[in-house]
Amino acid sequence: MKIARFSTGDELRYGIVEGLPDGERSPSGESPGHLIVLTGDPLYQVPEATGEVIPLSEARLVSPVIPRSKVIGIGKNYAAHAAEMGSEAPAEPIVFIKPNTSVIGPDAPIVLPPWTREAHYEAELAVVIKSLAKDLSPEQAPRVILGYTVANDVSARDAQRSDTTWARAKGFDTSCPLGPWIEVPEPGRAPGDGVFDPANALIRTRVDGRVVQEGSTRDMITDVAHLISYVSQVFTLLPGDVLLTGTPAGVGEIRAGQRVEVEVEGIGSFSNPVVRR
Amino acid sequence: MKIARFSTGDELRYGIVEGLPDGERSPSGESPGHLIVLTGDPLYQVPEATGEVIPLSEARLVSPVIPRSKVIGIGKNYAAHAAEMGSEAPAEPIVFIKPNTSVIGPDAPIVLPPWTREAHYEAELAVVIKSLAKDLSPEQAPRVILGYTVANDVSARDAQRSDTTWARAKGFDTSCPLGPWIEVPEPGRAPGDGVFDPANALIRTRVDGRVVQEGSTRDMITDVAHLISYVSQVFTLLPGDVLLTGTPAGVGEIRAGQRVEVEVEGIGSFSNPVVRR
Repeated sequence: MKIARFSTGDELRYGIVEGLPDGERSPSGESPGHLIVLTGDPLYQVPEATGEVIPLSEARLVSPVIPRSKVIGIGKNYAAHAAEMGSEAPAEPIVFIKPNTSVIGPDAPIVLPPWTREAHYEAELAVVIKSLAKDLSPEQAPRVILGYTVANDVSARDAQRSDTTWARAKGFDTSCPLGPWIEVPEPGRAPGDGVFDPANALIRTRVDGRVVQEGSTRDMITDVAHLISYVSQVFTLLPGDVLLTGTPAGVGEIRAGQRVEVEVEGIGSFSNPVVRR
Repeated sequence: MKIARFSTGDELRYGIVEGLPDGERSPSGESPGHLIVLTGDPLYQVPEATGEVIPLSEARLVSPVIPRSKVIGIGKNYAAHAAEMGSEAPAEPIVFIKPNTSVIGPDAPIVLPPWTREAHYEAELAVVIKSLAKDLSPEQAPRVILGYTVANDVSARDAQRSDTTWARAKGFDTSCPLGPWIEVPEPGRAPGDGVFDPANALIRTRVDGRVVQEGSTRDMITDVAHLISYVSQVFTLLPGDVLLTGTPAGVGEIRAGQRVEVEVEGIGSFSNPVVRR
């Protein structure tokens, strides 16, 4: 089940996405898909249909979640990406924080700040947390997952190299596009046979329509359950917190005037224009 | 004016602290001070007195603010501290993020996680932001300051050395004690003559009553206005965000069973027991 957060005017609402044609990955354009409008926020209550149905083409999708607390990022979680960054695969997950002020949704501009000359895209599988969690074992991790979404962990690579910390390089405003919606596992349906499998999903980035990065979540060094367990030994996870699971090899630069699209097969894709202020 | 956030039962309320004897720095114990109870949250509305007055000794103080977004920390902002850490004073501020899940108030335990063997205290002047801010000049910075509070930027020094980022070392649960209240500048009263001066305030840490760290905000490399300007080029600041301004020389270890007190003269002090889970 895909749950989107959207606006048709001022108000932000949630809806279940249905009617997407097979293979349609992006909500923009002339999609015949539609939204079954829900009451309230599915993070905090059991969603119920209001009865209203809205064509996807009439809705503006926004970030499917704005964390109340944090986006937790993981660095170098794919060996081939660690290698292209000139480093070994880390012995333990590399954890960083993107504040909630970095989050934007589909189609919102990625605004490159004046202090970077080298911004990179990083397509990633993202996990949305649904319940307060601390000190979980990997076995306990699945029960705190609301679902999965797609992230672009935009990184100011020059600042990442020159700064002592990654806060500026990875935390600046607009550096965390999330979308297009949250793929929520349905109880009793196991991955495979058309059901999204976070451990076996293709990840892609396109810049101006051309595929520039492609990998599979099969190649993660630390899997989703072990990542959630690890970060829950450090931070209390709150409903709406987002975990980015790392990017595969193939990162590269984005420049003002380009449009960058990130995709996780089985969830969907979205894109953002890149501007420089 | 000192504004505290407190509870006398379940409900959290705000109050103006009055009647503290000269030189009393800590709210615990037998203080004759009292709280003029306020309506609502002074971050979002002009505070008005409810008419109720509560003795400080009957109130439990909590963190004066829980950020909706982030605590922004600054590393090595005192030359003597940079030197004791074995490094040069940085050319630009070193920025890091502590998530809101790291914040605790006076008397709440600092819980050392099992993955660190070397946790340090770091007493700091903290700034509470009152309005949305982005790309400020240093001259514009004062207008977004609600006031000043005291922070302990608890740091897992071993993880800080071994990890690629500072997120785990400085962002773990309970690593950001804040208190005892917010010193709010009163319009028309300049620093000096009994008015708190953030550019000329003594900072101290006591462990089990013994002074172990002492410095002055006079020795900051980058002052408050320039720090706010710098971080506002990276992040949108939101009401309730907190900026930690760095710690002077004299950092050292805290161990389970100890009590650590941090003080900024002119604001006040508070302490936390240290435990290990």
